[in-house]
Amino acid sequence: MDTQQILTKVCDYMNDLVPFQRQVGFEITKFNADKSELKFRWQDELMGNVPQRMLHGGVTSTALDTAGGLVAIAGMVSRLENPSESYLMERLSRCGTIDLRVDYLRPGRGSEFIASATIIRSGNKVAVARMELHNQEGMHIAFGTGTYLVG
Amino acid sequence: MDTQQILTKVCDYMNDLVPFQRQVGFEITKFNADKSELKFRWQDELMGNVPQRMLHGGVTSTALDTAGGLVAIAGMVSRLENPSESYLMERLSRCGTIDLRVDYLRPGRGSEFIASATIIRSGNKVAVARMELHNQEGMHIAFGTGTYLVG
Amino acid sequence: MDTQQILTKVCDYMNDLVPFQRQVGFEITKFNADKSELKFRWQDELMGNVPQRMLHGGVTSTALDTAGGLVAIAGMVSRLENPSESYLMERLSRCGTIDLRVDYLRPGRGSEFIASATIIRSGNKVAVARMELHNQEGMHIAFGTGTYLVG
Amino acid sequence: MDTQQILTKVCDYMNDLVPFQRQVGFEITKFNADKSELKFRWQDELMGNVPQRMLHGGVTSTALDTAGGLVAIAGMVSRLENPSESYLMERLSRCGTIDLRVDYLRPGRGSEFIASATIIRSGNKVAVARMELHNQEGMHIAFGTGTYLVG
Repeated sequence: MDTQQILTKVCDYMNDLVPFQRQVGFEITKFNADKSELKFRWQDELMGNVPQRMLHGGVTSTALDTAGGLVAIAGMVSRLENPSESYLMERLSRCGTIDLRVDYLRPGRGSEFIASATIIRSGNKVAVARMELHNQEGMHIAFGTGTYLVG
Repeated sequence: MDTQQILTKVCDYMNDLVPFQRQVGFEITKFNADKSELKFRWQDELMGNVPQRMLHGGVTSTALDTAGGLVAIAGMVSRLENPSESYLMERLSRCGTIDLRVDYLRPGRGSEFIASATIIRSGNKVAVARMELHNQEGMHIAFGTGTYLVG
Repeated sequence: MDTQQILTKVCDYMNDLVPFQRQVGFEITKFNADKSELKFRWQDELMGNVPQRMLHGGVTSTALDTAGGLVAIAGMVSRLENPSESYLMERLSRCGTIDLRVDYLRPGRGSEFIASATIIRSGNKVAVARMELHNQEGMHIAFGTGTYLVG
Repeated sequence: MDTQQILTKVCDYMNDLVPFQRQVGFEITKFNADKSELKFRWQDELMGNVPQRMLHGGVTSTALDTAGGLVAIAGMVSRLENPSESYLMERLSRCGTIDLRVDYLRPGRGSEFIASATIIRSGNKVAVARMELHNQEGMHIAFGTGTYLVG
């Protein structure tokens, strides 16, 4: 498999088989080492502040953490040369978030939300990503920064 | 209503009527200005890393953000003197997370999880809380720090 | 005094009379509510890593915290209407950093450094700023985010 | 050299030869893998808020970053088996802060300050430390969390 085939395979895996991401309704729409993105639709189940009909802060942090993890994983995968499937799965299972910061800027309101991520520090062991959450009108809802173990 | 009655009322409200907290399965077990706590049980739907059967990082961040919000809100409520119900609801609806940091320390494995929070900086406008996530065996899974608008 | 005169006065005060900023060699070069900036020159006294001749991480965090404080203060000052000097000083003396995050991206090397800041969340009580540190060649050394009490 | 001799040597090096730490007046008083500590005395040069005679926030962040780096480095050094001096110096020169969070809790006032650090996540590549700053009366001034590259 070449890099693009591996990325497609990993993306399908993460879209179909990560239970909590399915429950919240995330769909990965971009998955590469430069930029990764996911989308999800408003559902009443995602509310935290009911009087104001806003997303729960945990939905926002989950979306940002996931988007940052995607771009960190895409970078790691892109550096592998012709890995076996078992080696690929082992590398994926060892990736994880070390720390996360979320800055909540505006109320989480909208019909659809896009979480996007880019890498600001890359390395063989640790990657740092910067993330943003916007709604369908481009309103900027939150910033995030995550440090990920990829080694 | 005295402070304890208000706290009980707000706690019931948050246990029953915050959709995303119900979906993840949070139950508030302590709600006061000194310390607040919530519990939730393992469910396969909460997994992020399937090969390792670990909680999604977003479940951890949601639990920590919620626990920190609880202790910040309990502090705000405790300082109100005999508020009307409508004033109380208005104050609650204006509370929110300003920023959150999560440090992931150990794999999120267990049958039950406890997120607890204490206040490290209190004020009329802004409160800062420190949070921890443990499993049923006392294993320390994550640290968190949150800054909350309570004014 | 109009807003621009007040900003100039506060900027002069902070350039001349904040001891630690003088010790590190900061010079404020832009001070307004949209963007604020400071510069400082390399000095051997600012080194942390001697074999690699890099800035101490504390110099970087000091520069970012200061730049974020500047833009938060400039925003607060710009919203005052014709304040007396004593009221202005009282408001300034109550401003402070609530929390700060610094992401170290590249080695702190160069002959001159520029720390710049913009506001990402503004309010009467709390402002959140995003900061960057670059060297004279435009190399991006660090990101920062700070939450400031301005009320 | 055994581990204790190496730690003593590294501690002396860092007390004597890190310019910015000397300028601020840090003295390392504990340097091991369980807990590390530094002290410094009040000097007017360290002020940020002059009317209130408080430490500059950058002094606090520098002290916390340094204390966290100490405990991370002590852990790394303790895992080396009989390293040559050149290998030890090479390892030290590659250590650095990845990210730092500081929570400012109370005004930085006092005659002497102690910054202490413990490890909350350890690894061969990355260590996470939690730090605290207190004054000579035990007043808790700030919390910090730092992620350090040690690999």
